[in-house]
Amino acid sequence: MSKKVSMAVIRRLPKYHRYLADLLDKEVYRISSKELSEIIGFTASQIRQDLNNFGGFGQQGYGYNVEELYNELSKILGLDKSYNTIILGAGNLGQALANYSGFRRSGFKVKALFDINPRLVGIKIQDLEVMDVEKMEEFIKKEDITIAVICTPKEKAQESANKLIEYGIKGIWNFAPMDITVPENIKVEEVNLSESLYVLSYMLNDGLM
Amino acid sequence: MSKKVSMAVIRRLPKYHRYLADLLDKEVYRISSKELSEIIGFTASQIRQDLNNFGGFGQQGYGYNVEELYNELSKILGLDKSYNTIILGAGNLGQALANYSGFRRSGFKVKALFDINPRLVGIKIQDLEVMDVEKMEEFIKKEDITIAVICTPKEKAQESANKLIEYGIKGIWNFAPMDITVPENIKVEEVNLSESLYVLSYMLNDGLM
Repeated sequence: MSKKVSMAVIRRLPKYHRYLADLLDKEVYRISSKELSEIIGFTASQIRQDLNNFGGFGQQGYGYNVEELYNELSKILGLDKSYNTIILGAGNLGQALANYSGFRRSGFKVKALFDINPRLVGIKIQDLEVMDVEKMEEFIKKEDITIAVICTPKEKAQESANKLIEYGIKGIWNFAPMDITVPENIKVEEVNLSESLYVLSYMLNDGLM
Repeated sequence: MSKKVSMAVIRRLPKYHRYLADLLDKEVYRISSKELSEIIGFTASQIRQDLNNFGGFGQQGYGYNVEELYNELSKILGLDKSYNTIILGAGNLGQALANYSGFRRSGFKVKALFDINPRLVGIKIQDLEVMDVEKMEEFIKKEDITIAVICTPKEKAQESANKLIEYGIKGIWNFAPMDITVPENIKVEEVNLSESLYVLSYMLNDGLM
């Protein structure tokens, strides 16, 4: 898979994956791009184009084999891989994410939380320990941690990212409300809650202008 | 504004808004769609098309007036409006969101948190009280609350949404990891953290297949 696929396409893949999972739950095993279009809200042509980026899944006159497509998307999304993960920042958000069921449904295995606050260090969140940031470098190296979730205050996000990368982290899920800058070989996914909130604001305001 | 704008366009608006704010911070007051394209990563033609949905902002040979466009987008996004808001579920995620700075930068005014857990009822998160869900109906009506943020467990999300709507809520920001079903006149924005996590997973896996 050397062809460069655009981020816009990639951002649609999890949605396909989710709707296909729903179809499998409902024991639907075959679907046309037109039917899929009605469920998922993209045009049939968009769906065919998106999926063609990864090889031809559909068959003229038959449509898509739901299970096959679901399994292929799981592989494309790397959900069959496993990544040792830590959470940096064990405040409310870090603790909430430690319990996040999405980690268990994907390949991200959370191994520990880290914090600078002595009142948090040593407590347990489910079966995960909150450790002192002083021990983070050693832990990352010894436990082969490749992913970090940043839940620090905004002001600490970039500095934290720099350290994590120095210690060997390859991917960052950033919840701090500011974009971080990283070298090209590091993968970052920014969670922009404000974009989601602004969409709600738009919808509430729609038609009132 | 009666023309129906597609959700795909709407989901791009907060990004324009954010990048324009950055430009203003850097005292850039004028920008071409080509320059904007380089910063934001959409094609210049996409940008012109998107913004044309809301009237012609750019001028041939001049480009966009950054401040004007920013102000217009703020209005389109309804960021100049005000919405009384509650958070349902005062666990870690609810508490984290009670401190979320994005609420202050938009029109959402969080007035209280509600929970069913007696150990949480009565505590204060910053200056916000955690109240008993038994008092939610009265509070929503008396305080003219129109927005609710759902931070309950997955199993309680739909039931909570039903009650909130019955009590008069018009918009829901749903953090429970399942989509909720609502009447057509109610606006819902689902926060799909798993979609974001899966994009990170894809990026980590890219090129390895």
